[in-house]
Amino acid sequence: MPRALGSLSASGEPEHSQDARRLRPEERSGGPAGQVTQPAGRAWTRSCSQERMAATGAEAKEPQRHNGCLVRLSNPHLATMKEDLLYHFSLGTGTHDFPAMFGDVKFVCVGGSPSRMSAFIKYVAAELGLGRPDEDHPNICTGTDRYAMYKAGPVLSVSHGMGVPSIAIMLHELIKLLYHARCSDVTIIRIGTSGGIGLEPGSVVITRQAVDACFRPEFEQIILGKRVVRSTDLDERLVQELMQCSSELAEFTTVVGNTMCTLDFYEGQGRLDGALCSYTEKDKQAYLHAAHAAGIRNIEMESSVFAAMCSACGLRGSATGPQGAILETACQPTLQDTGAHRPPR
Amino acid sequence: MPRALGSLSASGEPEHSQDARRLRPEERSGGPAGQVTQPAGRAWTRSCSQERMAATGAEAKEPQRHNGCLVRLSNPHLATMKEDLLYHFSLGTGTHDFPAMFGDVKFVCVGGSPSRMSAFIKYVAAELGLGRPDEDHPNICTGTDRYAMYKAGPVLSVSHGMGVPSIAIMLHELIKLLYHARCSDVTIIRIGTSGGIGLEPGSVVITRQAVDACFRPEFEQIILGKRVVRSTDLDERLVQELMQCSSELAEFTTVVGNTMCTLDFYEGQGRLDGALCSYTEKDKQAYLHAAHAAGIRNIEMESSVFAAMCSACGLRGSATGPQGAILETACQPTLQDTGAHRPPR
Repeated sequence: MPRALGSLSASGEPEHSQDARRLRPEERSGGPAGQVTQPAGRAWTRSCSQERMAATGAEAKEPQRHNGCLVRLSNPHLATMKEDLLYHFSLGTGTHDFPAMFGDVKFVCVGGSPSRMSAFIKYVAAELGLGRPDEDHPNICTGTDRYAMYKAGPVLSVSHGMGVPSIAIMLHELIKLLYHARCSDVTIIRIGTSGGIGLEPGSVVITRQAVDACFRPEFEQIILGKRVVRSTDLDERLVQELMQCSSELAEFTTVVGNTMCTLDFYEGQGRLDGALCSYTEKDKQAYLHAAHAAGIRNIEMESSVFAAMCSACGLRGSATGPQGAILETACQPTLQDTGAHRPPR
Repeated sequence: MPRALGSLSASGEPEHSQDARRLRPEERSGGPAGQVTQPAGRAWTRSCSQERMAATGAEAKEPQRHNGCLVRLSNPHLATMKEDLLYHFSLGTGTHDFPAMFGDVKFVCVGGSPSRMSAFIKYVAAELGLGRPDEDHPNICTGTDRYAMYKAGPVLSVSHGMGVPSIAIMLHELIKLLYHARCSDVTIIRIGTSGGIGLEPGSVVITRQAVDACFRPEFEQIILGKRVVRSTDLDERLVQELMQCSSELAEFTTVVGNTMCTLDFYEGQGRLDGALCSYTEKDKQAYLHAAHAAGIRNIEMESSVFAAMCSACGLRGSATGPQGAILETACQPTLQDTGAHRPPR
């Protein structure tokens, strides 16, 4: 059984109940998230369902241990704070019981759009057989319209808006939430849409490495006026596990490749239809061809800081806790596109 | 009369009607936007109301001309496109009549939060005496949850999310919208919240120049793999006009200063309460003191690309069309703050 996804049950505890039903293939292919989260969401749900099934079947005679990999922070100041307010979630340790609310979380799926993440949690709940089929999953962050958050059993679904700064704010507060809730063995996956390079529309890209607009596997930040560069590697084992899930589903093309993360959607991704454009179609094609030659298979706007924060917080590897992965549906091929291309978000 | 704000009427046309009532001072200080948009919004509305009043009074014997300053784009490819889809607004030239919907727009106010921009349009409509006091202003971008857009007479209110990439997408599509609608004499103002440096909470900063996290007055982008640097100057005349409006209101402290735009809210702004932090309180204070010495009076996450896009599209100056300005309320002083500071957004 893949280690990363653990022996997950709907409650977040090792699953021993014999009444947990096996999901039929047709149950995995429908639902509202099939329309809104694209195949990437289905690949992820497959992995979650598969683990749950494994835990309920003959393979799960020995319960797995889930006591070692707590979420950790990389900030000594937090230990001195009486209370931690997660301002952009409108949640705080002084007003909310984080362990009670979130202590069972094992999977966090993040994506740009609030409505998409709402649809996704309904789909996940149905797939995992949690609650009534028509059950509503209310937004946990009702005190703000910056982000939306939904929960079904051990799965948290959170929107992050568009672009590196927006997802970075969310990730800082999400990682602190998981820490305060004393979560363990958490896997974080970004499920998004992107512009494919040399791929058929609807293909899924599992990101091996996030690269910047110059194709470098790094994320650059300015901290107190100084340049800090962080690595953007993702967990290779999780990549392989997700690839295996997709192969078993065999419903859509899935590739492992590098993902280019840009700070701009129009000029930053070589589009010809922004308010500003100073290059030609030929220039654009040359850039996209060079990206493809560098192993890049899709372009989006959040992967680099996602990978960097997982890595910088020690959120990868078997010893330290959660793992991060990026699963993206390539909406439209950009390399073959001779005109303006959209919508890769 | 300040040139930038023109002789604006509620319809966007020169105002001659004698029944347009003068607003009493108490009408300017209440309303829902007083709670959500902070003093910056009131300063702007003051300027709009003032211009309207001027146009209805004795000073407006000669109607002003409004036929010269059309919105222009800096992209030759758009002229060859049959249809332009503003994907993140869910609006398109093939499906929507832009001149009919937006042709009378003279002011665009942008801010991060959708609910705040909804509250702001209600406040503006009441201030300008447009429609019934309880009239609803529906979201124009109902086909998406990426951005929200509201209109009252000549005023458009648009949310932009958080961070440079998010506002950049919005600005590309907004500038194209104004272009397709054949708008003229448009003033664009960001009305937001920010972290003040050496200011009392509630002070308003009118941005003279947006600077980056190294205090440089420039916005750096990677376009087709190459570094492009753009200027972040804002229109000095508009700065002075807004300062004059605020002086006349005399309800809150207003300063003109530089605004630092960062790509990150936690480490990027020297906060001590993110999931990651590798510096001390002393390091943080040294950085903020250096910023203050460089003329910076507040920190936020959108100003640099706002200024750069206005400038790069030729959106400043008397000859070429619209002007841009940034008006921000400093929610909390960061320089005096000895612990983690919030909420500067």
